[in-house]
Amino acid sequence: DIAALLEPLHPADIAHLIEVIDARPRRELMELWKGIDGEVLSELDENLREEIIDLMQPAELVEAMRDLDSDDVVDLVEYLDPEQQDLVLDALSPTDRVVVEKSLTYPEESAGRHMQVELVRAPEHWTVGDTIDFLRSDVTLPDQFYHIILVDPRLKAVGYVTLGRVLSHPRATLLRDLVEDTFRTFNVSQDVEEVAQAINHYHMITAPVVDDDGRIVGVITIDDAMAFLEEEAEEDLLRLAGVGEGSLSDRVIETTKQRAPWLAVNLATAILASLVISLFEGTISSLVALAVLMPIVASMGGNAGTQSLTVAVRALATRDLTGSNVWRVIRREVLVGLINGLLFAVVMGVVGLVWFGSPMLGVVIAVAMVINLVVAGLAGTGVPIILDRLNIDPALASGAFVTTVTDIVGFFAFLGLAAVWLL
Amino acid sequence: DIAALLEPLHPADIAHLIEVIDARPRRELMELWKGIDGEVLSELDENLREEIIDLMQPAELVEAMRDLDSDDVVDLVEYLDPEQQDLVLDALSPTDRVVVEKSLTYPEESAGRHMQVELVRAPEHWTVGDTIDFLRSDVTLPDQFYHIILVDPRLKAVGYVTLGRVLSHPRATLLRDLVEDTFRTFNVSQDVEEVAQAINHYHMITAPVVDDDGRIVGVITIDDAMAFLEEEAEEDLLRLAGVGEGSLSDRVIETTKQRAPWLAVNLATAILASLVISLFEGTISSLVALAVLMPIVASMGGNAGTQSLTVAVRALATRDLTGSNVWRVIRREVLVGLINGLLFAVVMGVVGLVWFGSPMLGVVIAVAMVINLVVAGLAGTGVPIILDRLNIDPALASGAFVTTVTDIVGFFAFLGLAAVWLL
Ligand SMILES: [Mg+2]
Ligand SMILES: [Mg+2]
Ligand SMILES: [Mg+2]
Ligand SMILES: [Mg+2]
Ligand SMILES: [Mg+2]
Ligand SMILES: [Mg+2]
Ligand SMILES: [Mg+2]
Ligand SMILES: [Mg+2]
Ligand SMILES: [Mg+2]
Ligand SMILES: [Mg+2]
Ligand SMILES: [Mg+2]
Ligand SMILES: [Mg+2]
Ligand SMILES: [Mg+2]
Repeated sequence: DIAALLEPLHPADIAHLIEVIDARPRRELMELWKGIDGEVLSELDENLREEIIDLMQPAELVEAMRDLDSDDVVDLVEYLDPEQQDLVLDALSPTDRVVVEKSLTYPEESAGRHMQVELVRAPEHWTVGDTIDFLRSDVTLPDQFYHIILVDPRLKAVGYVTLGRVLSHPRATLLRDLVEDTFRTFNVSQDVEEVAQAINHYHMITAPVVDDDGRIVGVITIDDAMAFLEEEAEEDLLRLAGVGEGSLSDRVIETTKQRAPWLAVNLATAILASLVISLFEGTISSLVALAVLMPIVASMGGNAGTQSLTVAVRALATRDLTGSNVWRVIRREVLVGLINGLLFAVVMGVVGLVWFGSPMLGVVIAVAMVINLVVAGLAGTGVPIILDRLNIDPALASGAFVTTVTDIVGFFAFLGLAAVWLL
Repeated sequence: DIAALLEPLHPADIAHLIEVIDARPRRELMELWKGIDGEVLSELDENLREEIIDLMQPAELVEAMRDLDSDDVVDLVEYLDPEQQDLVLDALSPTDRVVVEKSLTYPEESAGRHMQVELVRAPEHWTVGDTIDFLRSDVTLPDQFYHIILVDPRLKAVGYVTLGRVLSHPRATLLRDLVEDTFRTFNVSQDVEEVAQAINHYHMITAPVVDDDGRIVGVITIDDAMAFLEEEAEEDLLRLAGVGEGSLSDRVIETTKQRAPWLAVNLATAILASLVISLFEGTISSLVALAVLMPIVASMGGNAGTQSLTVAVRALATRDLTGSNVWRVIRREVLVGLINGLLFAVVMGVVGLVWFGSPMLGVVIAVAMVINLVVAGLAGTGVPIILDRLNIDPALASGAFVTTVTDIVGFFAFLGLAAVWLL
């Protein structure tokens, strides 16, 4: 029996197993295995989740959701079509239903959408003894919790205490005397990526989420924040490479479809660069050495531009590149381009001279190199910054823009200078 | 007074401030600010840490280390020159010194090197009451702890209990009845990146580290694991772009030095590609259209190869690409290359025909496109896999190899076919 075989595995391992096997055995497994666990669904890669959910009966789905924290229920409900959604929501207890429906009203990438409402709070005047008695009473507690959040009479979050401090102090101690001095809260509408970055930056285990009146409504836990930052870093990496959502579990056709648009964009920019070259057909036919050397200038510019833009995209993502240092960074990148440009200009000038025996050809390639590497530094930094200001993800579009610029400038500078100085 | 001004800030914020300001004000700040906090040093970017430590007096350094967890002390001691190291080690208590020296004997990227020894353990036969009495006695406890680790009489770790469960059960309850069923331990010599990935995968807050006899010797905490995975993801991103250790706080000269070697590698590969072109100088001079079109084939191959290699590098880093699915992935990438190759072959064939009015030129570019995109899929997956097997970081070197292959194959296929079929 499949269920009994999978039982001893951690839900994350079962999810991983489902991800790495082929599409056909995956479907066979899902047909044999009724009663898939909700935790397993939560752990599944987003692009497989829909496929698996579609194979499940509504009753099975309702059963799977029963023991999940509210954030995981919300995360699954998002994937359901409207009828399935109604079925699942109807099966929840009235309080749980209110919680899930409320969460779904917050924007997709907000703290409110990703928080769990399961948390432990206590009035700020409680003692350690009050807290222990409360926790030992038959209240329902979250599966995992590491802090007690202190609230004032209007449920405003005013501080929190780690469980270690509660456990290590006498019953008479006031909770308010044990609060962490680094307490900070996040608004429901705040970007969840920002919250995850704050969790990382301040080493928080639990990030309290409050509504506009400062009332505690949920928490974002560090394990979810960690998964979130991993996903964001992966997204940036794949987007920079022109791979929309690439995953190993995708099939050939899906993968082809994801990548083709970016190759199409690249084709368009490559044709643009070819148009620049075609302006100089006459120049090339009188000196074929130009055709041999021209890809070097373009390639060096593309590489230098990619270096600058990767550093800029990463710094924008981590909020290290902000209004206060933007000009300093641009200045630095242009200077780096200039220095490396001069360095490789000398190298290529010599190569050009030795290989083709023409000093003037060496000068042309050297000057074109300097121009293109300076432009690469400028475009590599400027393009992602401008895209970010326009609220376009710089990871998604910068690469195509920057290499178009460096290709065009590279070919134009090299062939243009050759046309003027050599012929 | 600087210290009083900085006092209310979180150490991570002070570190960030030091990172984003210019080199000159940074030095001025450090001259004014005596008594820099150890936590601030721990939070600093690695590439700035040495600079700041060099500005500190030995006594100041010793003082800064006093309240840090053992993992943070180890992390700082690594940066000291031998005399400074001796001074700091001498100032530690004998037990702390043993701990730090022991940690330093483990390999650099191991769990033993990155664990903190501050943890709370309890004999497996203890009750909740025993534990509370112990924690309330005047033992020294870690600043932060979220689990009690159960040990047998030989200090072998046998399970752990979350503090939430301890707090919510009556005094008579046995700890062993409260253990988490997902308990797992990590060996001191295990790769810390693997431990961090397990922490993420299994949602662990505390990862127990044991010696070869299974005795508990430390823990790796989730906040450190999170920072670690962020760093690894950033490293891969920057390495793929040929930026060694790029950071915004680096100066122009450092940045130039970091990037120049990668540009030099690219120059060498670009010259290699040019040599291929020069084999066909005669062909080009009889048909200049070839010079106009040839960068397109190379550029499309480079892009498709980068797509494949980025997916492969990421999957290798997350251990999603393993021996069990390597052939399936290679097959998929080659097929994707073939399909996209055919697609863009048709497009480019038409462009070639319309633009230059030569059906045969269209066929040449189309066939070269198919060849180069298939090779791109093969090289884009095969190169990182081979480098990984050779224990070379695939993020570091794959890019240069793959684009060299696609440039050479692209130019050779296109110009070679043209030479045979067109002239
Ligand atoms: Mg996974
Ligand atoms: Mg969970
Ligand atoms: Mg979601
Ligand atoms: Mg959660
Ligand atoms: Mg996002
Ligand atoms: Mg993003
Ligand atoms: Mg290129
Ligand atoms: Mg930082
Ligand atoms: Mg710490
Ligand atoms: Mg280290
Ligand atoms: Mg630590
Ligand atoms: Mg590493
Ligand atoms: Mg790595």
